[in-house]
Amino acid sequence: MPSQPSRHLEVVPNPKPERDYRIELTIPEFSCVCPKTGQPDFATIRVEYIPDQVILELKSIKLYIWSYRDVGTFHEAVTNQILDDFVAAAAPRYMQVVGDFNVRGGIHTLVTAEYQAPAVVA
Amino acid sequence: MPSQPSRHLEVVPNPKPERDYRIELTIPEFSCVCPKTGQPDFATIRVEYIPDQVILELKSIKLYIWSYRDVGTFHEAVTNQILDDFVAAAAPRYMQVVGDFNVRGGIHTLVTAEYQAPAVVA
Amino acid sequence: MPSQPSRHLEVVPNPKPERDYRIELTIPEFSCVCPKTGQPDFATIRVEYIPDQVILELKSIKLYIWSYRDVGTFHEAVTNQILDDFVAAAAPRYMQVVGDFNVRGGIHTLVTAEYQAPAVVA
Amino acid sequence: MPSQPSRHLEVVPNPKPERDYRIELTIPEFSCVCPKTGQPDFATIRVEYIPDQVILELKSIKLYIWSYRDVGTFHEAVTNQILDDFVAAAAPRYMQVVGDFNVRGGIHTLVTAEYQAPAVVA
Amino acid sequence: MPSQPSRHLEVVPNPKPERDYRIELTIPEFSCVCPKTGQPDFATIRVEYIPDQVILELKSIKLYIWSYRDVGTFHEAVTNQILDDFVAAAAPRYMQVVGDFNVRGGIHTLVTAEYQAPAVVA
Amino acid sequence: MPSQPSRHLEVVPNPKPERDYRIELTIPEFSCVCPKTGQPDFATIRVEYIPDQVILELKSIKLYIWSYRDVGTFHEAVTNQILDDFVAAAAPRYMQVVGDFNVRGGIHTLVTAEYQAPAVVA
Amino acid sequence: MPSQPSRHLEVVPNPKPERDYRIELTIPEFSCVCPKTGQPDFATIRVEYIPDQVILELKSIKLYIWSYRDVGTFHEAVTNQILDDFVAAAAPRYMQVVGDFNVRGGIHTLVTAEYQAPAVVA
Amino acid sequence: MPSQPSRHLEVVPNPKPERDYRIELTIPEFSCVCPKTGQPDFATIRVEYIPDQVILELKSIKLYIWSYRDVGTFHEAVTNQILDDFVAAAAPRYMQVVGDFNVRGGIHTLVTAEYQAPAVVA
Amino acid sequence: MPSQPSRHLEVVPNPKPERDYRIELTIPEFSCVCPKTGQPDFATIRVEYIPDQVILELKSIKLYIWSYRDVGTFHEAVTNQILDDFVAAAAPRYMQVVGDFNVRGGIHTLVTAEYQAPAVVA
Amino acid sequence: MPSQPSRHLEVVPNPKPERDYRIELTIPEFSCVCPKTGQPDFATIRVEYIPDQVILELKSIKLYIWSYRDVGTFHEAVTNQILDDFVAAAAPRYMQVVGDFNVRGGIHTLVTAEYQAPAVVA
Repeated sequence: MPSQPSRHLEVVPNPKPERDYRIELTIPEFSCVCPKTGQPDFATIRVEYIPDQVILELKSIKLYIWSYRDVGTFHEAVTNQILDDFVAAAAPRYMQVVGDFNVRGGIHTLVTAEYQAPAVVA
Repeated sequence: MPSQPSRHLEVVPNPKPERDYRIELTIPEFSCVCPKTGQPDFATIRVEYIPDQVILELKSIKLYIWSYRDVGTFHEAVTNQILDDFVAAAAPRYMQVVGDFNVRGGIHTLVTAEYQAPAVVA
Repeated sequence: MPSQPSRHLEVVPNPKPERDYRIELTIPEFSCVCPKTGQPDFATIRVEYIPDQVILELKSIKLYIWSYRDVGTFHEAVTNQILDDFVAAAAPRYMQVVGDFNVRGGIHTLVTAEYQAPAVVA
Repeated sequence: MPSQPSRHLEVVPNPKPERDYRIELTIPEFSCVCPKTGQPDFATIRVEYIPDQVILELKSIKLYIWSYRDVGTFHEAVTNQILDDFVAAAAPRYMQVVGDFNVRGGIHTLVTAEYQAPAVVA
Repeated sequence: MPSQPSRHLEVVPNPKPERDYRIELTIPEFSCVCPKTGQPDFATIRVEYIPDQVILELKSIKLYIWSYRDVGTFHEAVTNQILDDFVAAAAPRYMQVVGDFNVRGGIHTLVTAEYQAPAVVA
Repeated sequence: MPSQPSRHLEVVPNPKPERDYRIELTIPEFSCVCPKTGQPDFATIRVEYIPDQVILELKSIKLYIWSYRDVGTFHEAVTNQILDDFVAAAAPRYMQVVGDFNVRGGIHTLVTAEYQAPAVVA
Repeated sequence: MPSQPSRHLEVVPNPKPERDYRIELTIPEFSCVCPKTGQPDFATIRVEYIPDQVILELKSIKLYIWSYRDVGTFHEAVTNQILDDFVAAAAPRYMQVVGDFNVRGGIHTLVTAEYQAPAVVA
Repeated sequence: MPSQPSRHLEVVPNPKPERDYRIELTIPEFSCVCPKTGQPDFATIRVEYIPDQVILELKSIKLYIWSYRDVGTFHEAVTNQILDDFVAAAAPRYMQVVGDFNVRGGIHTLVTAEYQAPAVVA
Repeated sequence: MPSQPSRHLEVVPNPKPERDYRIELTIPEFSCVCPKTGQPDFATIRVEYIPDQVILELKSIKLYIWSYRDVGTFHEAVTNQILDDFVAAAAPRYMQVVGDFNVRGGIHTLVTAEYQAPAVVA
Repeated sequence: MPSQPSRHLEVVPNPKPERDYRIELTIPEFSCVCPKTGQPDFATIRVEYIPDQVILELKSIKLYIWSYRDVGTFHEAVTNQILDDFVAAAAPRYMQVVGDFNVRGGIHTLVTAEYQAPAVVA
């Protein structure tokens, strides 16, 4: 039963919303395309977040990651976009996304972006 | 002399309740069942706590961990439940439970939940 | 779509039967039951073989490994049985099965069994 | 200056054809597609060979590896095909190709195929 | 010239009492006896301290550690006792003792206890 | 239920005597006494063998190893004695015993002894 | 198409200037010349920064690093100069440069310099 | 051109005194003599400092370290003495010296001493 | 006292020519230039040999390695040339040279060449 | 009770002369002096042998190693001399000595020498 790449992210209810706890995901199979040369780029994506009312569903994360396979994008842009999309879908209390990219031109690049939900006035 | 899986947790008196000290347990042999597919899941559970009047007895932890072998449960739910059950049994000053789950769908998941005992007014 | 544990092993045609080449599989999620105490045992199974006319299908290996989850068996017996079953299903030119079992009683056990197909008279 | 994926392999003259010496290449950025599910697969390809009159040109190896990005192929088939194509292009005295594939269904697969040039009667 | 196990700890003058500096000792050869089963237990003991007027003499630490060889004691109790005995002997400004015990029943245990000298009113 | 150290080694029937296969045991908790100084010595013992009609029972190995705890013996002597005792108990087709001893006087010692059963005339 | 070493650093617009995020670059192929002996020196340069309006372009970093190949310079001076040049080119909110130099005379040297942009009055 | 061990430490001007930056030196070839037994002791010395007006010259550090080769000194004393001598020579803003000594009597010792320059009133 | 790069290799008499023994040298600081792009290449060179009447002098090896710094050469060519030059200088009984080159275009290359002295008729 | 460096090697009877078994010693604290510069050199010495009628006594090995501390000697010469002296003292059936020397001039050197006792005519 083949599935399709998709930017749509599913969420499921957080089983313990009354507690601040951390979820860390390591996704070593990210690949996109270099916008300059058209050649494939490879990275490991790491996501760490404190969920609020929902948590991200694992299979839809997999299809989301897959959706970049033919997309031309720079390291800094795509790491920030993943953070924006995951925050939009899950509205977490906190989230960090790390893009750990393979060596290009003898240089290894790692990009780290964070989101902090605004404090709520009680 | 076979023993049985059990959710009952034994405790023994803390030999040094007048001191805040840390106990860290690493339990690499946790297995439960995926509620969606019925297939076995595997994880390492790590527990770190500051005991108050009692400490958790090691053999009953082993039987407790065993009790999940045929239970269908999600990663986030089971990590929080272990924390809740251990806190209920041992009433520690502080406790952290980490569930470090094997790769599924190319994604590695790690869940970390903490408990802090309410401050006591002297 | 849940699947079921099964001792039935599927095979598919070897894409290059005219060449002797090696396939190595590492399966870190084997669990069975200790026949003496009834408690769960954990192991990593490693399989290396030179296929002849067929190769073992990966999903059926997964269901086969799953089938031991509630079976009481000793380390030496189960390693030899996996070798016998895989040889019966795939009739390889050569096969080695390693069972790498977690520490019990302070002792780590590793069992290695090999099969060599009889030489054929031309 | 973007380049294109290509199955064409360039060769250059061996600078020391009178000596048997070994060249080992490690290529961690292989990706193809699973023929069953359509989802991306990832592997590291390792090539070791003793050149005869020519050696494989590095950039054309890179474009050749890239050419599998949208191709559906099984682990055993693609490892043998890479060996066949590299042998056809370079006519080496000896060659070994290893395909080291990421975990799928909890199982890690490694395929190793070798070629030995026929002995020459002087 | 055989020596004897002993709970007596020797101290020598601190060569630099006017400076707060840290001494870390790693002692991988601790062995005692399980009070329940009578079987030997094994641990690595790590000690870190800021000395005041004296420092602990290494050979007497070795004989002190040896003195537990035939003593039945639990992990949490013995780690706290070592801290108490070392503090009593050396009156340090700060001390931490870690007991890192071998796996028992599939569970690895690490106990960490600290001592902080009371602040002095000038 | 405390047990006792014992030099008696139990054996159980080999489940696959018609096949030459290897069993490797790693026992990191060996301790004896230095015959010169009376101080404790520590080692890891590794055993590898091809069983014939019987295999060594794990619990009796544990009690056998325990029996050296108060015995004064040199590294070379005890490694050879363990090999002799294990061969006498199990009559294996092949056996190797390695004693990997902790550093003494700045020197790390490793002793390796092997046994090969005499060839049988058919 | 050969390129040339160059001290000129290119920048490109920061795709997410409204967010403080980190970029870490690891460049293992730095080589300069010892000003005392004229012999080559080797180092790994690590750069970590929070970009403001622009980010450093990777290829120009590579050519910049290359520009030191024939320059005589001391470890402490060159690490600070790289920081000064990168800050001048990119005007980041924060930057750290680490020079990790190979052993000379049995001594390994690591130099770490940081820049913090002045706080802006709103 | 043989050189001689020497306690004299050379300094050179700090190329960037207006910036607080860190220099870390790792010196794995320290050897002195045990004052009790006369036998050689071995250690790795690690130095980390923030220079003020001068930095320590590497070759004179090497000759300084060499000067301890025939000197009887205890671990705690020599680590503090190196810190005192380096501070006297370089007047740094901050300095830390670590002495990481080889195992003696089954115990590994690590000594860490720090210096902080007094705050200057502007 | 600056020295100069040089292709001249010094030798000194073998202190034990009557015994076949092995010398292994690891030289992590090799750098040359890519003949296509003019950009620097980096490698570790490993040499293993059985000397005959002379051994290679270390300082002249260092100056020899240095001599490639501005030379354009391919991986396979330079590894074979180093072997040829070292054999010509030292006339060893056996020699192996390995060139372990940094990643270029996502591919890591390792070249291994050997020399065996012709057998002598007594 | 201080001891003295000494070239005299003690031996003790082999507890199992009727069996060929291996003894491996690792001695990380070897130091001698460079004959050219007078500066200290450091190495790890590894010895592996099959004893005949005697085995080398550990403490005398330690004093023997110590005896090189003020001796000027080259890497190749001292490794062969240790082999010659140990063979002369212990008359083993086989012996290998490895000298693993610290980096000098950016080059790491390892020397391996072996001795094989002449075959005895029965």
